Amino acid sequence: MAKEKKAPRPRAQTPKGFRDYFGTEVTERAHMLHTIAGVYHRYGFEALESSAVETVEALGKFLPDVDRPNEGVFAWEDDDDGWVALRYDLTAPLARVYAQHRNDLPTPYRRYAMGPVWRNEKPGPGRFRQFYQCDADTVGAPSVAADAEICAMLSDTLEEVGIPRGDYLVRVNNRKVLNGVLETMGLSDDAQQQAVLRTIDKFDKVGESGVRELLGKGRLDASGAYIDGVGLSDDQAAPVLAFLTSKGTDAAATLANLRAAIGGSAVGAEGVDELEEIATLLDAGGYGSSRIEIDPSVVRGLGYYTGPVFEAELTFEILDEKGRKRQFGSVSGGGRYDDLVKRFTGQSVPATGVSIGVDRLLAALRAKGRIGGTAQGPVVVTVMDKARMADYQAMVAELRNNGIRAEVYLGNPKNFGNQLKYADKRESPVAVIEGGDEKERGVVQIKDLILGAKLAQSASLEEWKERPSQYEVPRDQLVAKVREILSQWA
Amino acid sequence: MAKEKKAPRPRAQTPKGFRDYFGTEVTERAHMLHTIAGVYHRYGFEALESSAVETVEALGKFLPDVDRPNEGVFAWEDDDDGWVALRYDLTAPLARVYAQHRNDLPTPYRRYAMGPVWRNEKPGPGRFRQFYQCDADTVGAPSVAADAEICAMLSDTLEEVGIPRGDYLVRVNNRKVLNGVLETMGLSDDAQQQAVLRTIDKFDKVGESGVRELLGKGRLDASGAYIDGVGLSDDQAAPVLAFLTSKGTDAAATLANLRAAIGGSAVGAEGVDELEEIATLLDAGGYGSSRIEIDPSVVRGLGYYTGPVFEAELTFEILDEKGRKRQFGSVSGGGRYDDLVKRFTGQSVPATGVSIGVDRLLAALRAKGRIGGTAQGPVVVTVMDKARMADYQAMVAELRNNGIRAEVYLGNPKNFGNQLKYADKRESPVAVIEGGDEKERGVVQIKDLILGAKLAQSASLEEWKERPSQYEVPRDQLVAKVREILSQWA
Repeated sequence: MAKEKKAPRPRAQTPKGFRDYFGTEVTERAHMLHTIAGVYHRYGFEALESSAVETVEALGKFLPDVDRPNEGVFAWEDDDDGWVALRYDLTAPLARVYAQHRNDLPTPYRRYAMGPVWRNEKPGPGRFRQFYQCDADTVGAPSVAADAEICAMLSDTLEEVGIPRGDYLVRVNNRKVLNGVLETMGLSDDAQQQAVLRTIDKFDKVGESGVRELLGKGRLDASGAYIDGVGLSDDQAAPVLAFLTSKGTDAAATLANLRAAIGGSAVGAEGVDELEEIATLLDAGGYGSSRIEIDPSVVRGLGYYTGPVFEAELTFEILDEKGRKRQFGSVSGGGRYDDLVKRFTGQSVPATGVSIGVDRLLAALRAKGRIGGTAQGPVVVTVMDKARMADYQAMVAELRNNGIRAEVYLGNPKNFGNQLKYADKRESPVAVIEGGDEKERGVVQIKDLILGAKLAQSASLEEWKERPSQYEVPRDQLVAKVREILSQWA
Repeated sequence: MAKEKKAPRPRAQTPKGFRDYFGTEVTERAHMLHTIAGVYHRYGFEALESSAVETVEALGKFLPDVDRPNEGVFAWEDDDDGWVALRYDLTAPLARVYAQHRNDLPTPYRRYAMGPVWRNEKPGPGRFRQFYQCDADTVGAPSVAADAEICAMLSDTLEEVGIPRGDYLVRVNNRKVLNGVLETMGLSDDAQQQAVLRTIDKFDKVGESGVRELLGKGRLDASGAYIDGVGLSDDQAAPVLAFLTSKGTDAAATLANLRAAIGGSAVGAEGVDELEEIATLLDAGGYGSSRIEIDPSVVRGLGYYTGPVFEAELTFEILDEKGRKRQFGSVSGGGRYDDLVKRFTGQSVPATGVSIGVDRLLAALRAKGRIGGTAQGPVVVTVMDKARMADYQAMVAELRNNGIRAEVYLGNPKNFGNQLKYADKRESPVAVIEGGDEKERGVVQIKDLILGAKLAQSASLEEWKERPSQYEVPRDQLVAKVREILSQWA
């Protein structure tokens, strides 16, 4: 007879693709979001926080990077609302919010939003199913002055979070110019246009010669598989390649190259004019080509956006997981998408915006050693006599009231070594000790743990004697002495 | 023949029970969370951010206020992990995190967490299905010094977010004392014990006489329905009522009353000792009974927690929706729950903590007029000549580089009145105007919109003439003049 089994214990694990963030991982992100919000606010943008849950109907199919977006979301059926889902970005909720509240909102409406989004995708190394986005968008402004403003704001934001000028570049392109190129090629077949768009999207990966092959007969890829081409002749493909490689030594040269690539296309000319206006506006604001430049090789999102497209790239090198140098790459992208609100209201509403990948930006600052040092822990007041806990509580209260991070040891105080081990694990700079003897004499022992660790590592016996790391002070000088030690290590 | 219908437009609406937060609603909450995090940090607590999604298995059935918690969550089936759900509080995820990472975490582990939680409950006025919590917990510390610390921290937090001493009270009770009372009553029947617990939970609503009736034969409630009683005799019920009403004029009196109520119960005595120790520790830290007091009438959560229980109440009166005065009431609660981690590991781990209802606290500050004024909008640079957008962009860049919140008007500039209406809707303090004439003469017009609005409301013709609200200054004095105006209204 089988023995009856107890119910198994639950596994203590996050669902696949999710993770926990500890300590400075949380506070450094909070600090970055606070800084970014400050810049956005200075530009006149207003905060918006929508809920994590939206109706699937309202979310629509706007996920840019996925062919079948409904497969990329976490969705469930609700008794009241039918199918609902976790938001997969902050743009789709903005469209819903604007359509719902448009009579109460100013026009144009500048808003920023920051928070987690969720993607029901296969997780991978460094790819999680919940991550932060930080967006700013202007709804209701048809002028490319709105696009230029977003680019300037993106540039200011990067500098303010700690990426110095020269270490980043905001690059601007325009979907209309590409439309002009397609027009001048005489590609009226929609399927063929889509094939060309998909090919252009691979420019980052396969380069000029790769795109040339893919637009023509096809290409053997790195895995050995043969990828069929679009089937254009070299002549037909030429304008696309001219477009992608039209970046000149300055904006004027780039714009001249683009005008040549679009031939007589009206929409193409409109696109080039817009780029020219953006360059002029940015120059006037002091955002020269060392910060923001026209670059037709920016292809990310060209299939999604309807006008100007922007991308912010970090230009410094880091070492990848295999120790090879590589460019850090993109941390932000955006552009103009004039049809987003139309689904709800039937009216076209111009909109342009940008999304910053906060987690990538934090990774970049960590890679450069600008954040991510171990944070200083609290001063630990040790417990020498359990019955005198009130004395120790009074000490930490005194320290905290003077703005010093402090805690009393709350574990089992029997083994004093464990208390010091705990202080070590907490990265505590200072430990305070008051045994019965000290209490009687009205003094406390104050241990400089940082100096202590340094001495233990490297000091000679003489240095050790000359520089004691433990001090005895009268009880009423507790705060002053702790402060003095902390100021040395600040 | 029926006409073919187009697909209907999606409704632009949040799912039921969810809402959007705009502008200062978002920034005031962010500011409060930042302040609270500062206090928690000073007490040695470390930030933790777990994901919104947990396995249903890991979440367990810890929702304190609901009999069948699985009905209260948003859950769906995932291909990889089976049933997963949105977290309904921040305590259940903490138990999972601690069980998962306990070998890497210090013991005791002090952590704070803040963020939205989700409840699949019937929404009502002011009750939403997504709301913020802000928790601090100490895991692995059996001593009531940990509970006392949480109470002190709660008191400091309330003062730091803007509730002055005297406007709040942290009240402390202890489940063990109640256990002692039940023991001394000789209630060995578990069902009867549970019935008594449920009755005590109604003390806030029905008061002493109501509880007396409900412990005895029963009670006619306000709706006219008869509620069956537990069926205890008056003598049997007496210790419960003695417990609930044992608050004396000071802590010593209360503790003496409690000792009488528990008779000879050992667990009851342990509970009273703990309360006494908490009172002693708090006194030593400077947290007297004007801030934190022992109060056996605190019943919220007594059924859930295993030791000390705390609640923070705002003691001032506000007007309710019907204009009647009432106490604002509870904004925070917590206590000791020693069995939370055991489900995962089989080992009991002591834990104590508190949760602050951030949205209620914000509502309290709004009710007292301490936050929630309309925030100042940006300086608006108007567009008099679309072709000179670059000039206007240069102006806003100059203002922003000097730390002044500013934007250029990005709507259709044709109708100047619309631009001023926009500035009005944005609560702008200043509008800047530079037409062709001004440009030629090297000047700009600067309109003080706040003064203008005041004058329009109340000024006599003389005052109007004497105090113009529009100034003409040389272009290079733009920043200085705007700053001067803003400093008047700061």
